Parts: sequence; structure tokens; C-alpha cells
Amino acid sequence: MDGAVKVLAFDVFGTVVDWHGSVVREVQAMELDVDADAFALAWRAGYAPAMQRVMSGELGWTLIDELHRMILDQILEAFGVTHLNEAEKRHLNRAWHRLDPWPDSVEGLKRLKTRYPICTLSNGNIGLLTHMARHAGLPWDCILSAEVFRRYKPHPDTYLGVARVFDLAPEEVMLVAAHQDDLDAARACGLRTAYIERPLEFGTNHPKDVAPNPANTRHATSLTDLARQLGC
Amino acid sequence: MDGAVKVLAFDVFGTVVDWHGSVVREVQAMELDVDADAFALAWRAGYAPAMQRVMSGELGWTLIDELHRMILDQILEAFGVTHLNEAEKRHLNRAWHRLDPWPDSVEGLKRLKTRYPICTLSNGNIGLLTHMARHAGLPWDCILSAEVFRRYKPHPDTYLGVARVFDLAPEEVMLVAAHQDDLDAARACGLRTAYIERPLEFGTNHPKDVAPNPANTRHATSLTDLARQLGC
Repeated sequence: MDGAVKVLAFDVFGTVVDWHGSVVREVQAMELDVDADAFALAWRAGYAPAMQRVMSGELGWTLIDELHRMILDQILEAFGVTHLNEAEKRHLNRAWHRLDPWPDSVEGLKRLKTRYPICTLSNGNIGLLTHMARHAGLPWDCILSAEVFRRYKPHPDTYLGVARVFDLAPEEVMLVAAHQDDLDAARACGLRTAYIERPLEFGTNHPKDVAPNPANTRHATSLTDLARQLGC
Repeated sequence: MDGAVKVLAFDVFGTVVDWHGSVVREVQAMELDVDADAFALAWRAGYAPAMQRVMSGELGWTLIDELHRMILDQILEAFGVTHLNEAEKRHLNRAWHRLDPWPDSVEGLKRLKTRYPICTLSNGNIGLLTHMARHAGLPWDCILSAEVFRRYKPHPDTYLGVARVFDLAPEEVMLVAAHQDDLDAARACGLRTAYIERPLEFGTNHPKDVAPNPANTRHATSLTDLARQLGC
């Protein structure tokens, strides 16, 4: 089933780190007079459409840091926040560099790393992912990003790019993610897949369906549960 | 002088790991009937010309693993080694994934990492550098490689690429290397530079000139010495 897996690649936002809770905390710490839950959701909701503008060719290749900033400028206006100066906006935009891990993430990654090389496969840019790893203590062996392949997930070049980087067949790579659409796209490229339940990815007010999809190689309640399942 | 430095980027072969001693040990472990010192030097001597064939356009973009293999096939013939099967050749070629660190490297990197993000900037491919990091215990925050920029050092895109990845000015990046030509090229792009003395890079029979060049920002006898100089 997954005996041939040689590398684990991880989605990051939502799978390894809690973007919603972390952005809410940053917004509250800056004492913005907004509904922090709604603000975090709006910021994240702008993400897929912004990447689509890049993938359609409307925008040239653009790093997630810049896309986050474009969306931030829009939602600050939409939420009526007008008093932030440039330095404050830059600081807030870098909230995505300071996302906190889920409680099981660091231990789970450390255990998985004892048997498998572990790398990111995120649409986040390399600098963002590197700063996040230092902030959150994520022990990656390697940071792979859409930035390396100049394609965003779910483009096949990203999933197959991991296999190519490590000189492996697609079925020797397992994508670990909390999003079925990401896993579906990886599976279509021949990768093994592991789903991680993150029912509170969108906050406690918006619980997420975490029903298993039997097409996945593994279904785990946490990264430590995945480590247990893989004998780490 | 280096107060503005925000990221340290490291050359790897010769600077962080002892390629000569490691290749010699691998050749001896396989009991090849060759002068292991000469064999290691010949393998490494083929490296710059092979990259030049890529940079000139004679070869398309080629990973170092493949260039190492092309050179290996040539030198096996030149040294009269004819009995290796394909699996043995593949194993020997992966010797570059199993290079040992210099005695000060792991401690030096751990100390430098407490104050600075530390990344590779090597012509080695990402898979090679990742496997090497796991083998040697190198605690990189991020693996950057010619493979990311699709240019080999000393092309400016590699040095400036590090600055771009971290959204920094060139002078906020310091290249750490045991090779003056690498540092010269980085300095020409505006980076800060630190020279590391590795007098035995080419083996005890071929001591290397490690005289200081005052143009470098720092000159250190080891990575622990650099850590001391940078207050880590």
C-alpha cells in the first residue's frame, strides 16, 4: 500500500499550521476594529482566485507574499480599516510567516522524519515557508514550493516535480494534506495520498467535513496518528 | 560591516563537507583497484567543464547527479575499472549524497542558525543536498540550489536569487564559501562574503592556499570560528 513510499511531501496551510487561528490572533494583537474571524476567512478566500489570475496568465508569475498583500489591501478597504501605515501593513502581511503549528505537527514531523525525508509542497513561497519553519519549529529536510516549479498546485508539474527532484517514480511520493482536492490532483499524477483531519481549519465557528475518502492511501486524525500508522 | 546581514547562504562541496576524503573512503570501501586520491580528484576535476557544457548550451539543463554520472563513466574507463555493474555504479555515484561534514560544520551551523536563517547555495541538486543533510546532520533552514534558479554558480542569477527568495537587498545576504572565485562572483553582485579556510579540501597530499583576501567581509578558520565572529 505505502511500502514503496520514499518521500513524504506536505501541504502546509491548514495541514501543518493553523492559518485561521494564527491570523485571528495577529488581527486581535493589532487591535484592528474588525470581526477577526471574518477577516481571516476573507483573506484566505481571496487566495485561490488570486492564484487563478496567475495561472490564467492575467498576472505574471507572482509570489504568495505579493498575492497576500494584494488581497490584504482589498480587504482592509472592505472592512473599513484605513489607519494602518505601510510598516504596519507589511507586518500584518507577514502574519503568514508566523503561523502556529497544530499541537501535533512538530512531534508528528519529527517522528515521520526518522524514516522518511520530509518536504513541503506548498503554494507558499520559499522565504515564507522558511521563516514559518523557524517560527514554528518545523523540522523540514527540504522546502519545496510552487516557486521552485513556477506552477501552483493543483498543476501536475508540482506533484510530479517532487518525484523528479528526488529521482523517484510518482508512486514513491506520498502527499500529506487536509484537503481532498489537493489529494485528488496528486493521486491523478500517480502519487500516494494521506488525508489529515483538520476539522477546525476554518475556526471553531465553521467546522469542516473530514469524512474519509477511500481513494486515499491513508486517513489520519493528526500527524502523530499518521506517524503511528507508518510505524514511526 | 555585516550588521545588516539577514541570511547566510553556504557553498557546500568543500566548504561544509569534505568531498575528497569522503569519495576516497567510498572508493576504498568498494575495493576499486585505483589510486583513490587521484580518482577523487579526477571526478571533481570533471565537474566545472561539465557545468560549462550546460552553461554554454551544448547540453540542456542537467542535474549534478547526471553530470557526476557522466564524469564517473569516463573516469572508470580511464582508470581501467570495468567490472562494476549498473547497481554498483549507481551506488558509487550517490557517494556525493553521503559526503561527511568537516568536524566543525554541524556545531558551527547550529550556532549560526540561532541568529540567522541558514540555506545552501550549491550547484548540487536539491535531492542530493537533502540526502546529504540527512546523512551529515546539517540543520539547513532551506535548501537552495542551482536547480531552483536553473543557472549554475557563478551566474549572477544564483546569488541574486537568494536575495530575491528572501525579499532582501543583495548586501543583506552573506555567502559563506571556501573558494575565492565563488566569493568574488557573489561580491560582484553586492553580497557580503565570508571565506572559510579548508586547507585540506583536496586531501592531505595537496594542501590548498588559504591566504586571506581583504575584500571579503569575514575570514574564518572554520564555521565555529565564523559563529564566534558573528556573535553566535
